[in-house]
Amino acid sequence: MNDFVTLNHGSGGKASSEMIQEIFIKSFGQVGDILADSAILDIQHNQIAFTTDSFVVDPVFFPGGDIGKLAICGTVNDLAVSGAIPRFISISFIIEEGFSIKDLKKIVNSIAKQANLANVKIVTGDTKVVHKGKCDKIFINTTGIGVFQKDLSFISDGSKIAFGDKIIVNGTLGDHSMAVLGARNELDFKVAVESDCTCLNHLIKDALDADIQVKFMRDITRGGLATILNELAILTNKGIDIVEKNIPVNESVRGLCEIVGFDPLYLANEGKFLMVVHPNDANTAIDFLRKNPLGKESKIIGEISADHPKMVVGKTEIGGKRIIDILQGEQLPRIC
Amino acid sequence: MNDFVTLNHGSGGKASSEMIQEIFIKSFGQVGDILADSAILDIQHNQIAFTTDSFVVDPVFFPGGDIGKLAICGTVNDLAVSGAIPRFISISFIIEEGFSIKDLKKIVNSIAKQANLANVKIVTGDTKVVHKGKCDKIFINTTGIGVFQKDLSFISDGSKIAFGDKIIVNGTLGDHSMAVLGARNELDFKVAVESDCTCLNHLIKDALDADIQVKFMRDITRGGLATILNELAILTNKGIDIVEKNIPVNESVRGLCEIVGFDPLYLANEGKFLMVVHPNDANTAIDFLRKNPLGKESKIIGEISADHPKMVVGKTEIGGKRIIDILQGEQLPRIC
Repeated sequence: MNDFVTLNHGSGGKASSEMIQEIFIKSFGQVGDILADSAILDIQHNQIAFTTDSFVVDPVFFPGGDIGKLAICGTVNDLAVSGAIPRFISISFIIEEGFSIKDLKKIVNSIAKQANLANVKIVTGDTKVVHKGKCDKIFINTTGIGVFQKDLSFISDGSKIAFGDKIIVNGTLGDHSMAVLGARNELDFKVAVESDCTCLNHLIKDALDADIQVKFMRDITRGGLATILNELAILTNKGIDIVEKNIPVNESVRGLCEIVGFDPLYLANEGKFLMVVHPNDANTAIDFLRKNPLGKESKIIGEISADHPKMVVGKTEIGGKRIIDILQGEQLPRIC
Repeated sequence: MNDFVTLNHGSGGKASSEMIQEIFIKSFGQVGDILADSAILDIQHNQIAFTTDSFVVDPVFFPGGDIGKLAICGTVNDLAVSGAIPRFISISFIIEEGFSIKDLKKIVNSIAKQANLANVKIVTGDTKVVHKGKCDKIFINTTGIGVFQKDLSFISDGSKIAFGDKIIVNGTLGDHSMAVLGARNELDFKVAVESDCTCLNHLIKDALDADIQVKFMRDITRGGLATILNELAILTNKGIDIVEKNIPVNESVRGLCEIVGFDPLYLANEGKFLMVVHPNDANTAIDFLRKNPLGKESKIIGEISADHPKMVVGKTEIGGKRIIDILQGEQLPRIC
């Protein structure tokens, strides 16, 4: 095998099949006939969740993760916050001619490791290679299937949300965005932040199985907390009140945001979710989440309000109020 | 809305949501909550097929199709040749900043039209925008789910194939590759060939429901017929004999192949399948397939042989024999 990816690796012929055997099967294991057009899966559930994401993060390696880890966690988390148990993943690569085989192997190993941790199976895939300069190193699409053990569709449709329900986040915001920004080496200083990129499905399943009335979940990715809260306000036709000082933000991220002029509320995360719970269960939920390392900085940040329907209002640290709008422009392209 | 795609359209914020509403929902219709992380699907079947493909075809518009049509047909056909009924599709775009909104709409309309014809639902999606020069116009991933009405796993695993079984293709080979090559304007002459890009699922379902013992199917895409035949020989540990003069090739394609030095057996198709049937049913199958416009040039091209296991041998037009090997290099990159 060469040191670099060539156009032949995307031909569907001998080089493609060698790459599948020597790189993908070695890491992912073999499921069924790898050359078959489709994976055939036994699904003993009548309701499934289905989600897709393409990952174009720049750079492909960053503190706390890489594009492969991101591709698994992103899709696993999308399934998990819908209340589904993530089960099967398809993976599709678009690779630039000349990309290093060593880096490809690192990424593939990272994918295999995360899939293993999250207990999902990679069951089908595709590889395309384009000429040098026609894509930026490597893009990855993952598409996932999860199953429902009971009807939890309310977890994503918001239909059980009521006034007074508490809004929780499971930790600090903005770490992923700032870690990626730092890795771009466009700043004159070092950024001491790691991405929060992680698979949240086990924590979420435990929370859904616990004695807590969880009414809604969503992961806080592109658009950041502000955008997710606005989508929730519109979805439920209710207002949302946020206490800004309760929103957990890492000190380095806060400082960095002040320097570069970003608002942590609009930054993408890859290991954070928003959870809406019955007010009686809010403290129990916090205690429960904090027992898990992925939730140890969980906080109640606000509540569903009978005032200002469809609007998100933040109480600022000096006691004022501001409307928190949906993200208008793009703070940081290619963050995932 | 602007005339061109901007980075904001990939932000996950306001511009993204406008693009989803004004372009995607208008064409695809709305299924569930478009902003939810996953589509929730009712699957009343225990066995499903799952397949993924990324499409990077260059150019994005070509005679007989475009990248959008290709993205639906490719995934629908992968499911159909597995014996599954294609049902749900996810679609994920990676778009170059500055790509024309008019062209995007054309592509999206083409996707919607094909999905409608194939009777599949687009249920979830994703859009990323990268800086100008970081991808080539537009790449599309489609991932599909099909359901099995009965156990047809033998259709893709080859387990029912026996010596003497006949091999059928449903029409001329190489049309797609030559149409795309012609559209690249790298040749000094006009190519009078249209891509065969089409969804084959209805024809395949009818064939599987008919009184024909279909033992195996695969679509003849990247790597061409030669590669698929070799994969089949290896999968079954049996030999394959092909009569080369029976392989249907359009006259213009044959001429063009002679000029540019390609072998039609290695060219990708997007509306062709290989079908293995019981010898007693071969003529019935041909009669059946020829009644459908998508199969009107169906031909028996060879059979499963007790000689030379794992090898594909072609009888040439002048009576000689040659070994038909798997595709070694890459004849035409970015054909799909």
